[in-house]
Amino acid sequence: MSLFERNAIFLNQENKSVEPKTHHLIPKATTLHHRMRILSAFIPRTQILSLRRFQTNSISTIRASMDPTEQSLRQSLSEKSSSVETQGNAVRALKASRAAKPEIDAAIDLLNKLKLEKSAVEKQLQSTITSSGNGSLNREAFRQAVVNTLERRLFYIPSFKIYRGVAGLFDYGPPGCAVKSNVLSFWRQHFILEENMLEVDCPCVTPEVVLKASGHVDKFTDLMVKDEKTGTCYRADHLLKDYCTEKLEKDLTISAEKAAEYKDVLAVMEDYSPEELGAKIKEYGITAPDTKNPLSDPYPFNLMFQTSIGPSGLIPGYMRPETAQGIFVNFKDLYYYNGRKLPFAAAQIGQAFRNEISPRQGLLRVREFTLAEIEHFVDPENKSHPKFSDVSKLEFLMFPREEQMSGQSAKKLCLGEAVAKGTVNNETLGYFIGRVYLFLTRLGIDKERLRFRQHLANEMAHYAADCWDAEIESSYGWIECVGIADRSAYDLRAHSEKSGVALVAEEKYAEPKEVEKLVINPVKKELGLAFKGTQKNVVESLEAMNEKEAMEMKATLESKGEVEFYVCTLGKNVSIKKNMVSISKEKKKEHQRVFTPSVIEPSFGIGRIIYCLYEHCFSTRPSKAGDEQLNVFRFPPLVAPIKCTVFPLLGVPFAITVDSDTSVTIRERDSKDQVRVSLKEAASVVSSVAEGKMTWQDVWASFPHHSSAAADEQEGCSQDICACHTNTGTCYRANHLHKDYCTETLDKYVTISAEKIAELNNVIALLAA
Amino acid sequence: MSLFERNAIFLNQENKSVEPKTHHLIPKATTLHHRMRILSAFIPRTQILSLRRFQTNSISTIRASMDPTEQSLRQSLSEKSSSVETQGNAVRALKASRAAKPEIDAAIDLLNKLKLEKSAVEKQLQSTITSSGNGSLNREAFRQAVVNTLERRLFYIPSFKIYRGVAGLFDYGPPGCAVKSNVLSFWRQHFILEENMLEVDCPCVTPEVVLKASGHVDKFTDLMVKDEKTGTCYRADHLLKDYCTEKLEKDLTISAEKAAEYKDVLAVMEDYSPEELGAKIKEYGITAPDTKNPLSDPYPFNLMFQTSIGPSGLIPGYMRPETAQGIFVNFKDLYYYNGRKLPFAAAQIGQAFRNEISPRQGLLRVREFTLAEIEHFVDPENKSHPKFSDVSKLEFLMFPREEQMSGQSAKKLCLGEAVAKGTVNNETLGYFIGRVYLFLTRLGIDKERLRFRQHLANEMAHYAADCWDAEIESSYGWIECVGIADRSAYDLRAHSEKSGVALVAEEKYAEPKEVEKLVINPVKKELGLAFKGTQKNVVESLEAMNEKEAMEMKATLESKGEVEFYVCTLGKNVSIKKNMVSISKEKKKEHQRVFTPSVIEPSFGIGRIIYCLYEHCFSTRPSKAGDEQLNVFRFPPLVAPIKCTVFPLLGVPFAITVDSDTSVTIRERDSKDQVRVSLKEAASVVSSVAEGKMTWQDVWASFPHHSSAAADEQEGCSQDICACHTNTGTCYRANHLHKDYCTETLDKYVTISAEKIAELNNVIALLAA
Repeated sequence: MSLFERNAIFLNQENKSVEPKTHHLIPKATTLHHRMRILSAFIPRTQILSLRRFQTNSISTIRASMDPTEQSLRQSLSEKSSSVETQGNAVRALKASRAAKPEIDAAIDLLNKLKLEKSAVEKQLQSTITSSGNGSLNREAFRQAVVNTLERRLFYIPSFKIYRGVAGLFDYGPPGCAVKSNVLSFWRQHFILEENMLEVDCPCVTPEVVLKASGHVDKFTDLMVKDEKTGTCYRADHLLKDYCTEKLEKDLTISAEKAAEYKDVLAVMEDYSPEELGAKIKEYGITAPDTKNPLSDPYPFNLMFQTSIGPSGLIPGYMRPETAQGIFVNFKDLYYYNGRKLPFAAAQIGQAFRNEISPRQGLLRVREFTLAEIEHFVDPENKSHPKFSDVSKLEFLMFPREEQMSGQSAKKLCLGEAVAKGTVNNETLGYFIGRVYLFLTRLGIDKERLRFRQHLANEMAHYAADCWDAEIESSYGWIECVGIADRSAYDLRAHSEKSGVALVAEEKYAEPKEVEKLVINPVKKELGLAFKGTQKNVVESLEAMNEKEAMEMKATLESKGEVEFYVCTLGKNVSIKKNMVSISKEKKKEHQRVFTPSVIEPSFGIGRIIYCLYEHCFSTRPSKAGDEQLNVFRFPPLVAPIKCTVFPLLGVPFAITVDSDTSVTIRERDSKDQVRVSLKEAASVVSSVAEGKMTWQDVWASFPHHSSAAADEQEGCSQDICACHTNTGTCYRANHLHKDYCTETLDKYVTISAEKIAELNNVIALLAA
Repeated sequence: MSLFERNAIFLNQENKSVEPKTHHLIPKATTLHHRMRILSAFIPRTQILSLRRFQTNSISTIRASMDPTEQSLRQSLSEKSSSVETQGNAVRALKASRAAKPEIDAAIDLLNKLKLEKSAVEKQLQSTITSSGNGSLNREAFRQAVVNTLERRLFYIPSFKIYRGVAGLFDYGPPGCAVKSNVLSFWRQHFILEENMLEVDCPCVTPEVVLKASGHVDKFTDLMVKDEKTGTCYRADHLLKDYCTEKLEKDLTISAEKAAEYKDVLAVMEDYSPEELGAKIKEYGITAPDTKNPLSDPYPFNLMFQTSIGPSGLIPGYMRPETAQGIFVNFKDLYYYNGRKLPFAAAQIGQAFRNEISPRQGLLRVREFTLAEIEHFVDPENKSHPKFSDVSKLEFLMFPREEQMSGQSAKKLCLGEAVAKGTVNNETLGYFIGRVYLFLTRLGIDKERLRFRQHLANEMAHYAADCWDAEIESSYGWIECVGIADRSAYDLRAHSEKSGVALVAEEKYAEPKEVEKLVINPVKKELGLAFKGTQKNVVESLEAMNEKEAMEMKATLESKGEVEFYVCTLGKNVSIKKNMVSISKEKKKEHQRVFTPSVIEPSFGIGRIIYCLYEHCFSTRPSKAGDEQLNVFRFPPLVAPIKCTVFPLLGVPFAITVDSDTSVTIRERDSKDQVRVSLKEAASVVSSVAEGKMTWQDVWASFPHHSSAAADEQEGCSQDICACHTNTGTCYRANHLHKDYCTETLDKYVTISAEKIAELNNVIALLAA
């Protein structure tokens, strides 16, 4: 499972090495973006409230963060209001009692003074709210600039636009496809090839039985309310969030206490049960936004697209909500393919589908998206990683559980130390955190706006050993783009149970091992006499004891001859006597160990990463004439959709101008520096820089410089151009790629000899290797 | 639209330059594998029967091809049977009439002689049928060997196997993913990059309105029958096909006429209407195969997976049955992106879905598959292609319409001549045929088992200008893997109409052009007096006249003052008088021409291509000891999942052995030749051969040879190995890639110095460029 957590309604109190019993495994599907969590009854509510306040990982909590100024101003405004009211009453009382005029005038003066003070505080509060509003306005203006540029240049387009589109579905246009293809190609290189992972490619159409086993059929839901008259559907938490946000931003009269309450609601609403959410909606009198009609109670809506397989309509199916299940169901074949050796990792890149109730946030919350998921299978007793030293020296922003709970912020930590101290549970998890960091920063994600946030205990499923999210800061707040979870044996176990096929690994011992086994033998005759019809329940409970429980019982029976024993299926204690059960430890020789592997799962939301990359690469700069702002995407060469062209306005990093029969000029976007390079070397220089084998500084140091007068002229563009395509290094003449900008260029061909063009194309063809 | 044809129930009699009127466009969706076609009433039935007999493009028609020996044997057997019967009667008559013994004996002798002759013919017929059966048995044995190897090595696996799978869904395992990734990467290189196409990436979830416009909602169907008692569904044509095939293969007693009838049915059943198919099933008394229960009448079953978008259940949607529609609906944006210039091509690679009634034939008929589609938009008045000369010299197997109809077979034609003679409709279509030929043969498709078959008139939609399928021969017969169709303006027009958004291109004239326009002005006052309530129908019919009709009417009105005119919406003739309409031609100045572009659509079934490639690359050879057959996939380096390893049994083309501190040995799979190459050169040599820049012969000529004794030893494998990954050229140590085979190798590391390994890895890292 992936890009969403599966929480359980029971949380483990301790990190048991004994794996949890399967009948406790009731997974709760939620997205990483905090789709309704069900909290454990074991954690006091208040602790969770205070604890959740310090999380700033979701949009709602960012906007709801406590502002002490605002709080004291609301307090002060409320005091001033009541002072004004009190003084008003005093004035009226004086007038009614026909007091002396000077006394009345003095009271009126004080009233006016208090009114002025109240008004001043009101202005201050208004301005505080507005300025935090301005922050979000600025973010929204920035986002609008990015999104407008992206849509105008066809990086992405709302799908089916001529039919007025469908919310939550987007197309990638040509430059968006090139970026996506670069990101996926680098992902394949960085993970699958460099780590020798086993890639698989499974269908999107998935029969129900698979998603029943995984928990999606029962638990992959959001809470929904309906307009009781029109039937229009809304996400229940969205309505509550909008109500609280609007109250906080637009209503000056609410008390500081009420404001604090709304903020609390915003911080914890993701944990509400359907009943709690419904109660809040009723309490606040929230109605359908479009009609003001009353709303239904919240109820769960399954987020999977449902279909049916085959013509009979009898095989229910769904479009997969993640790619991970395709790997789990193939575990046995993959394990054999890998020569029955652990650890190994399987990976899959593919489409996943979620039928969101009301998608907002553009590319971040969509109904169909590309996931890239890794399932690294490992012996639960040995989670070391042979290549951990490759990443152990890395330092980056981490946000461990303790820092979140004590209200601190993310801090730079050394990965090696974080694993050594146990902050990160094990080396393999740590290795993947490091590899994800390298992947994202090499793509061009700003490392100051990337953090690894550890899940809090209440965010994790009880079976998970540890979980970290790579969160990237964007105009929407901190966005979870990669989840890296140690999910223990949960998924393989669930499919083993449902399918009846053992998804296990074996470790053959070099020589047989002697092991001590607990043996519990209920004496059925005695138990039958004592418990009659309930004998079966008692026998089952006795057999289900773990080693600690059994050895305690044995000791008590030996010392006292009798023990009180709780039988959960009867809901009461029974009395067990010494003759009813024999408990012993026996030594056995074993030749191998059979176990369910743990799985460590890094799961990547490719669309989210790409969107955050767009924001991190976006900037504006004045045009040469200074009369307008130009929008620039400063993509790193690795992901730039076109590696090289003469049009710096598009934001591509390198431009080549053919300015003699033997040499070309290469210009770098950001420095605007130019070097002169021989025709033969041109393509390989661009390709080396594009792939990070050289920096622009290396190039600058190695080749003669070119005057900047020529560079400026170049922006006017009248020469023949070649542009390297990103994936292959193949170069194309820019006038083929950029017919829209460069139609004139074609005519200028005549100024360059046919031989030269042929020579250039030869260089280019060689580079295609 | 793609990989299936859209036929219309009206066929154009001539290839009109005037585009067909849209109300005639009733598309009929069928797969290239001849999903039910509706035949034009204009073509006499018998002509079609004889014409279809010569087609051998579908599995059924291959098996049903006319065998003259078999036919004459059936004829002869039937004659012998009746001779035996006649002579038997004669003998009985002689005995009854107590004829003379010698006379009776002579008659009995003759009877026995005839019986022997009959028995001899029976044996001959049995052996004829069995030998053609053996052909198919051999094909099936070959296929079984291929499929077993593919499944055992995880090239592909039936999906969700631990849950007993779902018919028609398959996973690609690690080597299958590598092959697929190589094929797609080469496709992107060969088409998108080399041709500067605009790539797009659209969702699979598609709202109904889009597929209503394209015709899929109404017409994308197969005919189905149900077991009337159990409700089990069957594809109607499959049952009929199985019945006829079994009769032909197992029943010796059927007459030559009956045999010919079954063969005719097999040849033409794809053209049956639901009623015709139902009548045949009734006539032959075909029942449900599993229960022998009666069957329902055939009825159309829509092959799209249906779902609903959003929580309300009010937006019906489907999983796209092809990727093409995503391009058509984006035409306007793409045209602007391309600087409003034609021609340009857009391309998309992605998943498509078809809910087959009963999938058979493994990877060839699946419910989810990868399509790669190109939509090349072109001015209908100019379908020349600037790069046609690049492919015009190519010669390969083509199967034009005329050859199919006159019973000839495919023949080698020069593409340039085929276009010049008009066999292929235009240069652009010809260009893509040539590019597809190069693509497939470079992948490793055997050019002797690849042919381009032109669609017959009755196979094409009436709006299509021309259509050719790239068919690849496999153990299933000739399989259509790529469709290359000139679809005229049909698709853009359909979406223009449904969406109300004009999907058109403009050609601006250098200077305004004077054009003659037909002007029809009905005189409503006179028409009103004459036709009262039906005036509107008459006016509409007058206005709908084409130029020829209008000018004829004008001439008649001028000479006779009156004309009979058929009003189709009234279903009768009316009399039009001179004063009721004015018809003229007026000259107008036009500054631009607005038109709907034609689209030429090459559409690739990636899974089918890969499966055929597996068959073409498969061979067996004896093991060294000669005691067993080894299965080998001789993949060309371009697609080989692993470029280089020491395990020739896997079928990978190159093996490197590190056998000294400074040099390695490279061994080629097929020749088993080995050369010694310096450590520094090793990676680049493999990469050059892998990419076709060098042949093995070049390598053989350039480097010192290595003794074959060493080569044999090498197959035993105990040395350190590097293997190049296919996509990137990155090399890995084989013991990482092949833990299953080579676990010993790891221990042998000590025999090679750490420095050497580091050096090798450096070379390898450099090659990753």
